[in-house]
Amino acid sequence: MRPVDFLSDFGLEDPYAAIVQAVLEARAPGVRVRHLAHGLPPGDLRRAAYALFEALPYLPLGAVLLAVVDPGVGTRRRAIAAEGRRFYVGPDNGLFTLAWLLDPPHRAFLLENLPPPKPQGVRPLSGWAPGGHTFHGRDLFAPAAAHLALGLPPEGLGPEVPVESLIRLPLNLSPGPTGEVLTFDRFGNAITTLLSAPLGGWVEVAGRRLRVLRTFGEVQEGEALAYMGSAGLLEIAVNRGSAREALGLKEGMPVRLL
Amino acid sequence: MRPVDFLSDFGLEDPYAAIVQAVLEARAPGVRVRHLAHGLPPGDLRRAAYALFEALPYLPLGAVLLAVVDPGVGTRRRAIAAEGRRFYVGPDNGLFTLAWLLDPPHRAFLLENLPPPKPQGVRPLSGWAPGGHTFHGRDLFAPAAAHLALGLPPEGLGPEVPVESLIRLPLNLSPGPTGEVLTFDRFGNAITTLLSAPLGGWVEVAGRRLRVLRTFGEVQEGEALAYMGSAGLLEIAVNRGSAREALGLKEGMPVRLL
Amino acid sequence: MRPVDFLSDFGLEDPYAAIVQAVLEARAPGVRVRHLAHGLPPGDLRRAAYALFEALPYLPLGAVLLAVVDPGVGTRRRAIAAEGRRFYVGPDNGLFTLAWLLDPPHRAFLLENLPPPKPQGVRPLSGWAPGGHTFHGRDLFAPAAAHLALGLPPEGLGPEVPVESLIRLPLNLSPGPTGEVLTFDRFGNAITTLLSAPLGGWVEVAGRRLRVLRTFGEVQEGEALAYMGSAGLLEIAVNRGSAREALGLKEGMPVRLL
Repeated sequence: MRPVDFLSDFGLEDPYAAIVQAVLEARAPGVRVRHLAHGLPPGDLRRAAYALFEALPYLPLGAVLLAVVDPGVGTRRRAIAAEGRRFYVGPDNGLFTLAWLLDPPHRAFLLENLPPPKPQGVRPLSGWAPGGHTFHGRDLFAPAAAHLALGLPPEGLGPEVPVESLIRLPLNLSPGPTGEVLTFDRFGNAITTLLSAPLGGWVEVAGRRLRVLRTFGEVQEGEALAYMGSAGLLEIAVNRGSAREALGLKEGMPVRLL
Repeated sequence: MRPVDFLSDFGLEDPYAAIVQAVLEARAPGVRVRHLAHGLPPGDLRRAAYALFEALPYLPLGAVLLAVVDPGVGTRRRAIAAEGRRFYVGPDNGLFTLAWLLDPPHRAFLLENLPPPKPQGVRPLSGWAPGGHTFHGRDLFAPAAAHLALGLPPEGLGPEVPVESLIRLPLNLSPGPTGEVLTFDRFGNAITTLLSAPLGGWVEVAGRRLRVLRTFGEVQEGEALAYMGSAGLLEIAVNRGSAREALGLKEGMPVRLL
Repeated sequence: MRPVDFLSDFGLEDPYAAIVQAVLEARAPGVRVRHLAHGLPPGDLRRAAYALFEALPYLPLGAVLLAVVDPGVGTRRRAIAAEGRRFYVGPDNGLFTLAWLLDPPHRAFLLENLPPPKPQGVRPLSGWAPGGHTFHGRDLFAPAAAHLALGLPPEGLGPEVPVESLIRLPLNLSPGPTGEVLTFDRFGNAITTLLSAPLGGWVEVAGRRLRVLRTFGEVQEGEALAYMGSAGLLEIAVNRGSAREALGLKEGMPVRLL
């Protein structure tokens, strides 16, 4: 049985993530579901792409990554599964862009063949027909992830599509010297697309020059710095503050090694 | 071993949900505890009742639903276990009202017989006697849920009471044409008590007429719509906004199919 | 296999807690990881110390408590494992002060010997070398906790240090008559360091006298009271309000039984 690593923006006020888990466990009895994060900012594809990039190198080969951040649910965007050294299940909206830099898929399939789960062990209510078009995590993606967790062939999910047709966000990672602000974490630290920066060197962003240091503690409270983050990307922070606010940073802003 | 599905408003800043899980696992070794949601708005019984209704059809027969949203903890409200096609453990405050429309209980018992868990493997501190009257999740409900998870008879929990005596919220679900606003999700979408509505039809709420569509994407940003939600109830939303605020909706407001 | 109980301030917007779990599961296959709480206020050592005190009496003997609330990460603070009737892994910053009142360690070791996990099954990116100095949960503490979960000897982690050298917060619990405000929960209730108080007696805090009652429901909405909390410590609350705000309470304020 392959483990399932599950990420979403479902939040923690609702049982959505647990319903998906229940469908996975009903279809693939004994599957291990690991919850990667469900408190992601709703619909934030850059943030989700970064979270998957951070986690991927520590997830086992053969794992099934189920990711549901899906602002286009119910529209015509495709639902896909892709196979690299791990499996990927989710909307075809660019969510896996950064993960696939590390583990490029060689095959992809549309999710068209599996039936959604049906309510079980309940009394019918007059007129009631749950389903709808807004909970693909439960109705479309969980059945596909369970199928792959069981070790069944991805061909069973639906027609194959070229991996080149899979949607990617307009993002790239680079060793430098130029990159951009990728996203922010909950403290307002900026994560950039730069894969390296020399310790003691300088970085320019939003009209400022910042020193590349080892960690926060090397500057005073309220001062800004740059440092290599734990995911291997250059980050911009303000010690005990929000770099996003203090420096007026925005997604996509250019960042340059000097 | 029966699985336990656990819902509460304990939040995620405190170890309360994990302490309940630890008591469950100590008393029923090997039990599978699935966390349904712990970030529910504190004390919000309508929201909790809706969450249990949403999840129930996807939870296995024989599962033990442990639900602790309990604004009356420490007062005289009863603590109960009920048996339908699943088991229900929690305060007798109406929490299960909607779940029981789908899976009506045929027997119910008061929780009076089981001893609370005691601190284990700790040095005594002078004067220290943990317990108190405010953590029934740990002291009363977890022991009862563990008892049922082990497959022991509910009669062992305490005296039987008539299922008609169990408290229900003044709520009903209806195929129409009239219903009410049941609760809101974290985005401000309103969930109603209506079990069906014809696609393309019209709904009246708060002095407005809204079209019943398939999904959000069919209206402009900022526009309101109605649609059948994933739980099989009619919902009112504003695309990328809060219907609660934009339309001034409140719990209990009438909703009518035109 | 010993179970791991994991507490942090990593939050739920990022996959950090899941990455730590993945490292634990890769190094100690089959380990049971129980998530105690990850939504703790960032860097709040008093709150974390209280959470560990609350949970400890209900965690099994031999469990590995992994706690990562670590405002000094990347500075010279030590990383340690300690052995009492359970194991403790985390930064040497006082986090375990209150837990160790219940389960005092008799041995302690620095974490110096184990290699950090390496990215696996990923394509190299030019210049990319994840690691950094800011994610000790993944790189230092998870490997140590996995080592102990496997039942391997703590001597393998690094050099032994005297338990007297372990850092403690300047906090003590007392049967009375004097104590202080320890911390606050998410509702603004104050938890004090007092281990007992007679029902019906009086407590003085912030210039006010409050009655020691059984539970919230015994006062009107908006009124203040004291009561013995579920962890066995005296708490100060305002029924349906925030005692912190309403009474102007702060951490460390004196509390006195009259």
